[in-house]
Amino acid sequence: METVSLSRAHGGAQGVYRHDSRVTGTPMTFSVFVPAHEEGERLPVLWFLSGLTCTHANVTDKGEYRAACAREKVILVAPDTSPRGEGVADADAWDMGQGAGFYVDATQAPWAPHFAMWSYVTQELPALVAEHFPVDMERQGITGHSMGGHGALTVALRHPGRYRSVSAFAPIVAPTQVPWGKALDAYLGDDRTAQRRHDAVALIGDGARLPDLLVDQGDADPFLAEQLRPALLEAACRDAGIALTLRMQPGYDHGYTFVSTFMADHLAWHAARLRG
Amino acid sequence: METVSLSRAHGGAQGVYRHDSRVTGTPMTFSVFVPAHEEGERLPVLWFLSGLTCTHANVTDKGEYRAACAREKVILVAPDTSPRGEGVADADAWDMGQGAGFYVDATQAPWAPHFAMWSYVTQELPALVAEHFPVDMERQGITGHSMGGHGALTVALRHPGRYRSVSAFAPIVAPTQVPWGKALDAYLGDDRTAQRRHDAVALIGDGARLPDLLVDQGDADPFLAEQLRPALLEAACRDAGIALTLRMQPGYDHGYTFVSTFMADHLAWHAARLRG
Repeated sequence: METVSLSRAHGGAQGVYRHDSRVTGTPMTFSVFVPAHEEGERLPVLWFLSGLTCTHANVTDKGEYRAACAREKVILVAPDTSPRGEGVADADAWDMGQGAGFYVDATQAPWAPHFAMWSYVTQELPALVAEHFPVDMERQGITGHSMGGHGALTVALRHPGRYRSVSAFAPIVAPTQVPWGKALDAYLGDDRTAQRRHDAVALIGDGARLPDLLVDQGDADPFLAEQLRPALLEAACRDAGIALTLRMQPGYDHGYTFVSTFMADHLAWHAARLRG
Repeated sequence: METVSLSRAHGGAQGVYRHDSRVTGTPMTFSVFVPAHEEGERLPVLWFLSGLTCTHANVTDKGEYRAACAREKVILVAPDTSPRGEGVADADAWDMGQGAGFYVDATQAPWAPHFAMWSYVTQELPALVAEHFPVDMERQGITGHSMGGHGALTVALRHPGRYRSVSAFAPIVAPTQVPWGKALDAYLGDDRTAQRRHDAVALIGDGARLPDLLVDQGDADPFLAEQLRPALLEAACRDAGIALTLRMQPGYDHGYTFVSTFMADHLAWHAARLRG
């Protein structure tokens, strides 16, 4: 693991790191913010999964999480959203291929050789982070934005007990029911069972459960009606008895000023569940 | 004036605007954050001048000022650091030419036709902002980072009474005494009088005064010893009886994690002097 940059920030340290991933077969870059802490102390960790077109850098630059992480003493890790580089398949569309891994292990050509973001964010990266940073892996939370909200929800739903706290910013909640689901067709093929295992609403319908859940959604988000459809999540949670706090935020769009506005609230939500 | 983007943020609105500048003869882009406020209410305004290589976007994306601006009800305006584009002179060096206007009106070839950042930030942009945004021009503060700290200090020193509050992040305080002063040689030529009027330490030595002043400076800043030299400002302020609060911040470098860490403190400093 190579340190790309390391800067003092809000009393802690914001780092960017690169390593050769075994599961994607590419170099992968991620960021980690470690708040000030006592020697030997281990802190809870919050995973932030990013949205379409993003790298680790978007939330690292624009997420405004460091003040809240420092206050709550929570480590935040932000991975990339796909493998990248020459030799990695890509698409002309901005919502497919590089920058659009959808947190699945692709089974279909030309994606299968490198697009293994499910294994990356659920296995390889957690092991690497546990080895190199002062994290308490008994106290993990997960969140994400848009495609990364989809990632956070599906990862949490399929790892019961691993994440004590779950939230999302404008998540894709039912990819198999919306146009962005074309990515699942491409990566997983016409395998309905496999696709349902990467669809939060379907997973809940099939019996998967979460602890309580915080979702913020801007009502001026251009993707709201066609791609995001939070009412589907609301109905699924209601039917399943999952305590969903869904906050429709008036006037907010899909960008990082939306994410950063509510970041401190999400950090407080996670910290309350990760303490002790 | 054209609106490039406008997004709700921290209860207010983050905008980016473009206009054809009369003084630079180029299109110029700037950002404005307007906190939530009552209909007809006018808010104090804080000018943030950016450093070498930056556009309006660096602090807009990475400055983490919106939460504090919303809390303190202060408008923040961030201009670009130079004219840009084809037909505008440039240099191979990253610390000269486009992205490095040094907040002067250049008198020398090839810079003179477009490099008029002094007039831009002291006259043209304030008039434009006063016309289009709910600012109270009787309540202005100014701050900046690095080259922009130099800009903030020199602009404030030469407009006594205009700015009620002044601060800087890792400012260049004495360009005529450090290597980055080569920019003044290029833009102003070998005119010592003109150069002294763009050097905060020289201006103070020549009798210019400020209200009290807050400066943060990282002690791990790679430019500290050769280019920034805060001790020169400290000595000048001491001799002149200017109340300088100079905070050496242990472990911080010259980047935006340093700026964003102390942004809320600066907003509080300005707000305390801009109230009422």
